[in-house]
Amino acid sequence: MLIDMPLQELEQYRPALTAQEDFDAFWQQTLAVSNAQPLDASFELLPTEEYAYVADRVNIYNVHFNGFGEGTRVAGWYLVPKADYRREKDGKIPTIVQYHGYSGGRGLPSAYLHWALQGYAILAVDTRGQDGDTPDNHQYVEGGFVGFMTKGLLQPEHYYYRHVYMDCVRAIDVVRSRPETGPIFITGGSQGGGLTLAVAALAQDKGIVAAMPDVPFLCHFRRSIEIYSAGPYQELVDFWKRRPHTVEESYRTLSYFDGLNFAPRISCPVLLSVALMDTICPPSSGFAVYNHLGGEKSLRVYPFNGHEGGSNIQEQEKYRFVHKLLQG
Amino acid sequence: MLIDMPLQELEQYRPALTAQEDFDAFWQQTLAVSNAQPLDASFELLPTEEYAYVADRVNIYNVHFNGFGEGTRVAGWYLVPKADYRREKDGKIPTIVQYHGYSGGRGLPSAYLHWALQGYAILAVDTRGQDGDTPDNHQYVEGGFVGFMTKGLLQPEHYYYRHVYMDCVRAIDVVRSRPETGPIFITGGSQGGGLTLAVAALAQDKGIVAAMPDVPFLCHFRRSIEIYSAGPYQELVDFWKRRPHTVEESYRTLSYFDGLNFAPRISCPVLLSVALMDTICPPSSGFAVYNHLGGEKSLRVYPFNGHEGGSNIQEQEKYRFVHKLLQG
Amino acid sequence: MLIDMPLQELEQYRPALTAQEDFDAFWQQTLAVSNAQPLDASFELLPTEEYAYVADRVNIYNVHFNGFGEGTRVAGWYLVPKADYRREKDGKIPTIVQYHGYSGGRGLPSAYLHWALQGYAILAVDTRGQDGDTPDNHQYVEGGFVGFMTKGLLQPEHYYYRHVYMDCVRAIDVVRSRPETGPIFITGGSQGGGLTLAVAALAQDKGIVAAMPDVPFLCHFRRSIEIYSAGPYQELVDFWKRRPHTVEESYRTLSYFDGLNFAPRISCPVLLSVALMDTICPPSSGFAVYNHLGGEKSLRVYPFNGHEGGSNIQEQEKYRFVHKLLQG
Amino acid sequence: MLIDMPLQELEQYRPALTAQEDFDAFWQQTLAVSNAQPLDASFELLPTEEYAYVADRVNIYNVHFNGFGEGTRVAGWYLVPKADYRREKDGKIPTIVQYHGYSGGRGLPSAYLHWALQGYAILAVDTRGQDGDTPDNHQYVEGGFVGFMTKGLLQPEHYYYRHVYMDCVRAIDVVRSRPETGPIFITGGSQGGGLTLAVAALAQDKGIVAAMPDVPFLCHFRRSIEIYSAGPYQELVDFWKRRPHTVEESYRTLSYFDGLNFAPRISCPVLLSVALMDTICPPSSGFAVYNHLGGEKSLRVYPFNGHEGGSNIQEQEKYRFVHKLLQG
Amino acid sequence: MLIDMPLQELEQYRPALTAQEDFDAFWQQTLAVSNAQPLDASFELLPTEEYAYVADRVNIYNVHFNGFGEGTRVAGWYLVPKADYRREKDGKIPTIVQYHGYSGGRGLPSAYLHWALQGYAILAVDTRGQDGDTPDNHQYVEGGFVGFMTKGLLQPEHYYYRHVYMDCVRAIDVVRSRPETGPIFITGGSQGGGLTLAVAALAQDKGIVAAMPDVPFLCHFRRSIEIYSAGPYQELVDFWKRRPHTVEESYRTLSYFDGLNFAPRISCPVLLSVALMDTICPPSSGFAVYNHLGGEKSLRVYPFNGHEGGSNIQEQEKYRFVHKLLQG
Amino acid sequence: MLIDMPLQELEQYRPALTAQEDFDAFWQQTLAVSNAQPLDASFELLPTEEYAYVADRVNIYNVHFNGFGEGTRVAGWYLVPKADYRREKDGKIPTIVQYHGYSGGRGLPSAYLHWALQGYAILAVDTRGQDGDTPDNHQYVEGGFVGFMTKGLLQPEHYYYRHVYMDCVRAIDVVRSRPETGPIFITGGSQGGGLTLAVAALAQDKGIVAAMPDVPFLCHFRRSIEIYSAGPYQELVDFWKRRPHTVEESYRTLSYFDGLNFAPRISCPVLLSVALMDTICPPSSGFAVYNHLGGEKSLRVYPFNGHEGGSNIQEQEKYRFVHKLLQG
Repeated sequence: MLIDMPLQELEQYRPALTAQEDFDAFWQQTLAVSNAQPLDASFELLPTEEYAYVADRVNIYNVHFNGFGEGTRVAGWYLVPKADYRREKDGKIPTIVQYHGYSGGRGLPSAYLHWALQGYAILAVDTRGQDGDTPDNHQYVEGGFVGFMTKGLLQPEHYYYRHVYMDCVRAIDVVRSRPETGPIFITGGSQGGGLTLAVAALAQDKGIVAAMPDVPFLCHFRRSIEIYSAGPYQELVDFWKRRPHTVEESYRTLSYFDGLNFAPRISCPVLLSVALMDTICPPSSGFAVYNHLGGEKSLRVYPFNGHEGGSNIQEQEKYRFVHKLLQG
Repeated sequence: MLIDMPLQELEQYRPALTAQEDFDAFWQQTLAVSNAQPLDASFELLPTEEYAYVADRVNIYNVHFNGFGEGTRVAGWYLVPKADYRREKDGKIPTIVQYHGYSGGRGLPSAYLHWALQGYAILAVDTRGQDGDTPDNHQYVEGGFVGFMTKGLLQPEHYYYRHVYMDCVRAIDVVRSRPETGPIFITGGSQGGGLTLAVAALAQDKGIVAAMPDVPFLCHFRRSIEIYSAGPYQELVDFWKRRPHTVEESYRTLSYFDGLNFAPRISCPVLLSVALMDTICPPSSGFAVYNHLGGEKSLRVYPFNGHEGGSNIQEQEKYRFVHKLLQG
Repeated sequence: MLIDMPLQELEQYRPALTAQEDFDAFWQQTLAVSNAQPLDASFELLPTEEYAYVADRVNIYNVHFNGFGEGTRVAGWYLVPKADYRREKDGKIPTIVQYHGYSGGRGLPSAYLHWALQGYAILAVDTRGQDGDTPDNHQYVEGGFVGFMTKGLLQPEHYYYRHVYMDCVRAIDVVRSRPETGPIFITGGSQGGGLTLAVAALAQDKGIVAAMPDVPFLCHFRRSIEIYSAGPYQELVDFWKRRPHTVEESYRTLSYFDGLNFAPRISCPVLLSVALMDTICPPSSGFAVYNHLGGEKSLRVYPFNGHEGGSNIQEQEKYRFVHKLLQG
Repeated sequence: MLIDMPLQELEQYRPALTAQEDFDAFWQQTLAVSNAQPLDASFELLPTEEYAYVADRVNIYNVHFNGFGEGTRVAGWYLVPKADYRREKDGKIPTIVQYHGYSGGRGLPSAYLHWALQGYAILAVDTRGQDGDTPDNHQYVEGGFVGFMTKGLLQPEHYYYRHVYMDCVRAIDVVRSRPETGPIFITGGSQGGGLTLAVAALAQDKGIVAAMPDVPFLCHFRRSIEIYSAGPYQELVDFWKRRPHTVEESYRTLSYFDGLNFAPRISCPVLLSVALMDTICPPSSGFAVYNHLGGEKSLRVYPFNGHEGGSNIQEQEKYRFVHKLLQG
Repeated sequence: MLIDMPLQELEQYRPALTAQEDFDAFWQQTLAVSNAQPLDASFELLPTEEYAYVADRVNIYNVHFNGFGEGTRVAGWYLVPKADYRREKDGKIPTIVQYHGYSGGRGLPSAYLHWALQGYAILAVDTRGQDGDTPDNHQYVEGGFVGFMTKGLLQPEHYYYRHVYMDCVRAIDVVRSRPETGPIFITGGSQGGGLTLAVAALAQDKGIVAAMPDVPFLCHFRRSIEIYSAGPYQELVDFWKRRPHTVEESYRTLSYFDGLNFAPRISCPVLLSVALMDTICPPSSGFAVYNHLGGEKSLRVYPFNGHEGGSNIQEQEKYRFVHKLLQG
Repeated sequence: MLIDMPLQELEQYRPALTAQEDFDAFWQQTLAVSNAQPLDASFELLPTEEYAYVADRVNIYNVHFNGFGEGTRVAGWYLVPKADYRREKDGKIPTIVQYHGYSGGRGLPSAYLHWALQGYAILAVDTRGQDGDTPDNHQYVEGGFVGFMTKGLLQPEHYYYRHVYMDCVRAIDVVRSRPETGPIFITGGSQGGGLTLAVAALAQDKGIVAAMPDVPFLCHFRRSIEIYSAGPYQELVDFWKRRPHTVEESYRTLSYFDGLNFAPRISCPVLLSVALMDTICPPSSGFAVYNHLGGEKSLRVYPFNGHEGGSNIQEQEKYRFVHKLLQG
């Protein structure tokens, strides 16, 4: 059944942006602080007996680097094919940076073999505090509802995703620090899609050649909250149930982190996927982003899928998209 | 329908304790660290126009004090009746310390008027990180599943509730620091019930005359996780879904925080309530605690209630229990 | 997610009234019958040992009076502070009359201490037949679906709520019969909110100084039934499933009991609360009432709450509203 | 999945009866009162244009008679085949008396054509207060939870089902008062099954030749309430949630109305059906009844059906059972 | 709550047809193939001991005939009243042909006694593959999602319902082959309603005097799929989740089987019922059909019923409709 | 919460087998028929532009072969690494044969790249009729409930899974027919796990070196149906609801297809995974199989996972298991 606007309306849906006047200043200043902070990246080769089944083809590193601000070391997996198994572009390896969905973590390195064995390097990074190996040690000034969505919600400087977005930008610096790294593709689904959009806007000077967000979360908050019926937007709602007077103040904070406002600031090619039955990240939020993208862009619409999106089909679309861009 | 053992079995249910050998040492050392840390409590009288409707009868203070460890100021409300409205025991005011349920916060001070207007002082404190005004700024070493149950789960020293339990003990010090404070009663439901049990065991030398835990959470973890079908035990399960190899290690940590193990260490009188249809904090976990309590104890069983427990009925039971104890 | 119109539309929503031509005649005649019927109120002081914990401050009476028509004695609790604990207005005690929500009852007297200990008298009355101590002994002419909503639905004279509304008006007479009674405030949530509106319209000559309905039920039936997705409106729907030909006849009956039609007939000040996620009493039904109120009025909107409404926050709003009105 | 004991255990399950000592006295006295009360039955032939489609074969009467106690006229439909379409036994028409399920009513007369057109007379009666044309005008002494299960629960004399059971017995007198009536068969499903059992025990001297209860409700209350997960037993539970101290008193009342206690008092042949996945009327309650039946008895077990029971299959079993008994 | 357009809009709702240009050609050719195929109908009288209870009044035959295409014998029950119990029209018996709902089967013959004992003959037929005694042995070229809705979906010639519709038309030939058969009425609910509409359009030259579809399925696919929230349209959605690129191709196939496109091709009188809360076969799909019917037509609207529709009430409407048509 | 026996009991759980006396004869005869039927396998290289992104490393073939019996061509994908990317054992490629879960299909070939790029060949085959490209064209003799579980249920020779099991055995012949094929590993989850067990027992003479079933379906039917609460066992239950008299006959059929009975007939090494919260394929059914396995065996238990099982963790376990076996 229809859960949002009909497709014809979605295709035309281009709502007003919600960025505050100091949106760009806010991020320039945040980036300046982040850039000034040492990365201190470490790459530890995993014991090969742990992945003996594929150690002849791929090297797997346990990566750590300083997250934004004090106290948080971010963990990631870096998989890089051995010489005979590499795909190369101008003598460098095209590299994927992947962000994960809400409440997840980097998981097992074997989950990324499908990219590595095709010849790409890949860095998969944790989201701080979430169910990986990375804590969130920012010093907050108040509590929040169960989950991450409302941590520091009342002030943009303290909002949880300010730190997450910077961690994700810093992950680009991490791969950029490797001599073998060639063109960088960024991707992720759901929260990972929202992070992909933010990084595409905030780190476009760092060699990102394309962004591939799927069913992105953290986009067009006001509309999403009117339409969603499952998933973590509920945390905001639960927070507001107890603090009804903070709604507008919260939306002001969220505007700094809204994929809608990042969209017109993205210049690299984007391959976006949207699912029309997505009750977690409603399709109108994805179309709103898409219709504001200014650069080269492609859309994949899954008319009867929910938040699982295109799954294997979209995965293959991304293989083709990356391969084609590298050919061009 | 029956969700746990029949009542007759519950009444006899007295499972083995799960405390590790160093259980007491762990807490003695933790208490020593906590006791050595300054409290730095502040009491700020709220602007009386905020509660003009009752300001002739009650003073309301916004309280803050240092939580356990670095970086966390714990917030609370302290309501104390004015002279004409006080109940006294040996020239001092009997005082209630109340802990709240999982995912909540201290809320509004007006929520505690029912005690204050009966003539008691009351301190209602936040649980760090949860939906109040108190952050959780402990420096963790890894992430966790959405929620608080799995923060620092793999090491007792880092487990979230180690800090919470100490914050709650320190709240006793906070009221004890007031000259007007007389005998202290501690109470709370669900998580607040679990905290009441922990504080009754860990702070019994601080003038606590009775504990009144309702439908306590954080008790008899192994059994609770076999029986529960709703509520935050699910967070542990979700964590273990992704990390199946950490189950035993986690249970070891949890044993240090289990109300079951605190029960035989409680010497003050206890009024406990249990609901036989409680699918969040199963009745067998409450009975297990009750049957291990060594001191004076009373039980209120609500045969057809769920986690809401006895609600108003139990509230009145507590009014009577406090009043009677003070008469005695 | 949005469950009804957006806020901007709600603020303008002022649907046509549905009152039949003889609406006022119907109620005048009903009131005449009721006024002619003896009240026969009894006030029995509860044994003080039942509430020894607060008997030094408050007197608690078990109240009974003749409900509308034959055979139904309505029960209530009347709490009145002792001399030293009273708040007074012109030498009389301001008094709250409280109506409860659907399927409930007066409950325990201790549930009303928060008002009594602030210095007010309070009468909390049962709704006949529902889960209190009051039967519904009206002689009906047919059966109905499980619940109370469809009892006598096919004729306004026999409709259940005709008797309930009159019982509620008679409760005002009950407190008015006490020598200590000063200005009367009426309040209630959900069904209690609907009753508050009806009484405010039907008993405004009896010294009611303000009405405080929360998330009112029994308002704007046609719209509510289009929008609701939970709660007792379902009883009407279940009745109509088996008797599809009675829908219009039923709506005609309901029009006599609709808060929408009472709204323009209310002259005392009103403090109304509405929750925008209320799936039981949809927000458009509350706004429809509010926008038809003719007298002094204030609105509290809870944008992300459901039928629980503003809970403690709204409770405090009412404390302030009562206090301020008495100051004025 | 299994929702109660395995079949082998059910077949042996014969729990202790729960009848109080004065069980038989209670019912003898109740029957005496009922028998002393005039029936005042009226049979009004429906306008034949309402059922012109079958008026050449069947007469349909709208029946009313005095229910037990004051003020309640019970409605029913009486269908009797015309001369050419009758089945006869010793010159009289075998007659079905049918009781309906909880929350229902007699419905439309056309719903009983399947019996009438086979040649039987049939009387289908309302249950007072429920969704038919019959009110429940007993004068109760208190309210109850939404529904009928808790009306008058605290005193056997006032319990709702005391009146219902007597209405059902009186319905036998109603058909017995017709000159054409031959042997009587009683039947019903769910509540109708419970009523069938009660009538079989209480009215066995009135010419009932067999009872055919399906998936009976109102049987073995304690066990049913331990096992059920849907349906009206929940009303008792909801009542007890607010009045936890009345549980034992309530069970005492219920013992007078429990099909379990009627079972050994039934002497006519019984055809009983039970469904092993019945979560409303658990199979162990049906087997408990069956295993206590003293007379001739047959059981139909539906291993994978829920409360819908054997539906058409069982309906045909009843056609065969009636036909065969009449042959014999 | 409202689940589709308001009634006023429904009454005007007359969407564009979706028939392809070769819609009629497709069906003419299909009918030609079907008509050329031998029926080979067999009528086996059931052993009368199986239905001894009614064998003096009715004959029951187990019917089989060749379904459309190779390999599928379709099963049905044929009940015909004995001489004394027949209703006649011009010396022939008016006959009902009934199609069943999705996932069902012909069930027990006793389920059709209500028609037979009124004096009509009735043929109740299986739907191939579904839960009756008839397999679906068409040779498909690919698999499909669990269920029948997606079998052969990508080509109209192979679509499951092409065969089902022809089986249903052939069932008319089956009764027509009986010497006793008079005027034919066709009916069914849900899927049976969709089949009734298809047969009314495709077999109108075979002596069908009226069609009585209830809450018809298989109508106005695009709208239905936008509005439904339960039932077998979900199978299409699940199929499209995995094959998103086949949506338009599938809708093209479905257009050949859409009741919407059959509506203007029906010339016999139609009695249609629609339920406004039907979440399986949304009311707008029923109204769309009704508003396109060109011949004599009547509508029964059940405003608060779901997919159960008018149940007994509608059943009686059909008794009256048939009876009246035969009188005229 | 616990959904089946505690782990200690599971580890000892070894129920009686349910194989009929002619179990082995049944399968020998079935295998004989199958072996006598030509395979007629075709391998069509996919157009490389469809998988240009990886065509330099892998060849992908669209495979078809004759399924068991008449009329059904089974589809599969065969991926084989190019020379430089192969892993070899004695000059041949170790090959995976993978069966999918209930209601699925072979999906996209890119879903199998993770194995192919590690150097293995892999054949992924459809299950007939299910949501792939393979029809089920067996000629059945009756219908069944929605789904595949009840097709032909009343006779072992006609049961759906007889044909599926043979298709799966024939898939082994398909890879065996390739000159490059070395040792064969078979695997699959859920239904794929059940198929793996059946093939391991029935095709052990065809060069299968190990079987890796995950959370297997189709095992220990009686127990599974007592414990399951979701998934396709429900189809059997729905079938039995309408045909209660066929239960034992059905269980007899199922015994021929029960993984429990195949277990002691498996001689190759088995790596089995079981999830203790699996409500679709209950853990006791998996343990029952494991405890009856006679050969070399390893178990992976996921204590808090449901039917998703060990997911990535188990996937890696299989990589390691295969790699280690090939080393040995």
